[in-house]
Amino acid sequence: MSKLQGKVLVAQGGGPTAVINQSVIGAVLEARKYPQVTHVYGAVHGVRGIVNEDFYDLTEATTHNLEAVARTPSSGLLSTRDKPTEEYCQKIFEVCKRYDIRYFFYCGGNDSADTCRIVNQDARKAGYEMRVIHIPKTIDNDLKVTDHCPGYGSAGKYVAQAFAGVNLDNRALPGVYIGVVMGRNAGFLTAASILAKKYPDDGPHLIYLPERTFTKKQFVSDVKAVMTKHGRCIVAVSEGIVDAKGRPIAEQFTGGEKDSHGNAQLSGTGALGDLLSQWIKEGTDFKRVRSDTLGYIQRSFLGCVSESDQQEAREVGEKAAQYAIWHNRDGSVAMRRVGDYAIEYFLTPLETVARHATSMPDKYINKDGNGVTEAFKSYVRPLVGTLPTCERIHAPKVAKLKKK
Amino acid sequence: MSKLQGKVLVAQGGGPTAVINQSVIGAVLEARKYPQVTHVYGAVHGVRGIVNEDFYDLTEATTHNLEAVARTPSSGLLSTRDKPTEEYCQKIFEVCKRYDIRYFFYCGGNDSADTCRIVNQDARKAGYEMRVIHIPKTIDNDLKVTDHCPGYGSAGKYVAQAFAGVNLDNRALPGVYIGVVMGRNAGFLTAASILAKKYPDDGPHLIYLPERTFTKKQFVSDVKAVMTKHGRCIVAVSEGIVDAKGRPIAEQFTGGEKDSHGNAQLSGTGALGDLLSQWIKEGTDFKRVRSDTLGYIQRSFLGCVSESDQQEAREVGEKAAQYAIWHNRDGSVAMRRVGDYAIEYFLTPLETVARHATSMPDKYINKDGNGVTEAFKSYVRPLVGTLPTCERIHAPKVAKLKKK
Repeated sequence: MSKLQGKVLVAQGGGPTAVINQSVIGAVLEARKYPQVTHVYGAVHGVRGIVNEDFYDLTEATTHNLEAVARTPSSGLLSTRDKPTEEYCQKIFEVCKRYDIRYFFYCGGNDSADTCRIVNQDARKAGYEMRVIHIPKTIDNDLKVTDHCPGYGSAGKYVAQAFAGVNLDNRALPGVYIGVVMGRNAGFLTAASILAKKYPDDGPHLIYLPERTFTKKQFVSDVKAVMTKHGRCIVAVSEGIVDAKGRPIAEQFTGGEKDSHGNAQLSGTGALGDLLSQWIKEGTDFKRVRSDTLGYIQRSFLGCVSESDQQEAREVGEKAAQYAIWHNRDGSVAMRRVGDYAIEYFLTPLETVARHATSMPDKYINKDGNGVTEAFKSYVRPLVGTLPTCERIHAPKVAKLKKK
Repeated sequence: MSKLQGKVLVAQGGGPTAVINQSVIGAVLEARKYPQVTHVYGAVHGVRGIVNEDFYDLTEATTHNLEAVARTPSSGLLSTRDKPTEEYCQKIFEVCKRYDIRYFFYCGGNDSADTCRIVNQDARKAGYEMRVIHIPKTIDNDLKVTDHCPGYGSAGKYVAQAFAGVNLDNRALPGVYIGVVMGRNAGFLTAASILAKKYPDDGPHLIYLPERTFTKKQFVSDVKAVMTKHGRCIVAVSEGIVDAKGRPIAEQFTGGEKDSHGNAQLSGTGALGDLLSQWIKEGTDFKRVRSDTLGYIQRSFLGCVSESDQQEAREVGEKAAQYAIWHNRDGSVAMRRVGDYAIEYFLTPLETVARHATSMPDKYINKDGNGVTEAFKSYVRPLVGTLPTCERIHAPKVAKLKKK
């Protein structure tokens, strides 16, 4: 047990998820149990709230309130797109020191892990004892070491339910349908659309990921082949698909707008979907071509949560507090798959998760680069959990009276 | 009780909804109880399936299968965008006669009601006794006579949950967010986004409907005012918003593509949202401006159903069979609100629902034309039903140690 007496500070960074609040509340409620924890603070708007000294005293939030927040999607402590430099991290550390923060829990992706790593270094250099734990979250599922990331399963569930509905809609009124899914560098979320398939002719029929080169020629040819076979075609495509030179297809159509990290803006515009529709309209004679961009709703929709994701998100938060306070350790909480389906938690060094993200392994992508494998389905199914049922009419056709 | 012995034919038309199968299955299961009903046929792809004589014999579907289909969104019998002419209707009637169809139930919007009206006339003229009942469905909620339309409540629930999530997301990472909702001529569905608001500063902050003129000037000015007040702004806008001349704002940005009814294509493209984003970027210095188009997912999403909508959709189908078979009547099934909240069903003449649709009454729209009234909220809340809960952190702020 850590003998370190002082305050706990929790914060959230990056894009919200459906279950990120579970992680934060898990850490907060667990931390509130320990006598050496004097207060539990929550930074408002992530690291920005730390340097601005904008804190909630969560020691004075009711358990009921915190549990209700845990069940709420998005970041209850609010978030930031700030990606701290070394200097920024130094400021974070200084504020932590000033407020006698002895346990710092930061929930986010690989950038957040890197912030944890630097702050941890700063503290060590200064001889200030402070435990720093990174709590994983991302709908992109692109963190290293861990089997998967909290937040992914629920977003995947939304994507699967969206494509399941769209598949039924497209059966009723056939045509080409293109759904653009979030994922700049990793295709995991787009790939989760595969769970929408129940019958062999169900969509999505084609899945394009940032891990493979996307060409107009193959795309048009693939869609034609599916249309010939099924008379309709549903495409799931990652917003981050790239051309042969590795440039995002979307880049040229977003007016060059960059996000705060200097990347091309992919979300919050329908441009990529419209472009892909245009390519099909130009390259074929299919009349009904439609695209939707799943947008922000896929990561925030109220009321679509994977049960396992929700539970695991809660547990990684609790484990963060336990690793820091019981075990006096720094690191990033990770999950290991130990059965089908069971996981166990462990702590991995911050530098193993910080900075570099990962992407979908080759074994999960089919050889044509336009779909996923059974191995991926086995991987993703327990993360997304059960989907609402849907069914087709099973009845005999009536013999025609009129001869054709 | 009708003594008319023969077959029942059911069909679905137009855009699918989350509960249209409830209506069809309600009619089918009810019809299967009557001894004078020899078979229950289902036309595949709506009226097109009738003229093509493409029928399922639903008398031989299992009850379990039909119940599973009832819980499935979209049109289990598949749909069509065909809008029958008088000649087309004549063909429908001839097929009905050839197959000894004595009860025809057609589930759809005002166009479908018009088809019912004409087919009913044709039968009467020919001295062929056949009951024709229109079963209402539309996510647009724009049918005359009835208090509301089955399908609307569930789509409204999706829209409310989407905006509730987006509101939380936008609190975490503030900016301007524009969500484009279906609705060519009626703003009911867009207006349902109001149920996303829990706290006074929650979004949507602005709601634009096709019932009012949309100007760039007012739009930019409204967004600026909300940004000043809240530092963020969520806009819900109908795809069908029009300029001062009544022309759809979207029209000029969809390449002039028309749907099968000769209307500008509004859905299946992100163009309108992107245009509105552009207007804000040009007219203000707000940096983070994002738009999503809710698209087909809002009417088909698997697993988002209003309970009252589901029950009423089932009942209008059952009532169709009862009015036709018990009471030997033709007409369109409608709902009357008799309490808060209770409804009763009645049959209205086909011509009162056919052809012309309705739109939102003035009393539901605020005087500035950028929001809805409390009267609308009272109207819509029971139709959408309960939403998943969400909550904010309630905790005291910590006094800053560092002087600013």
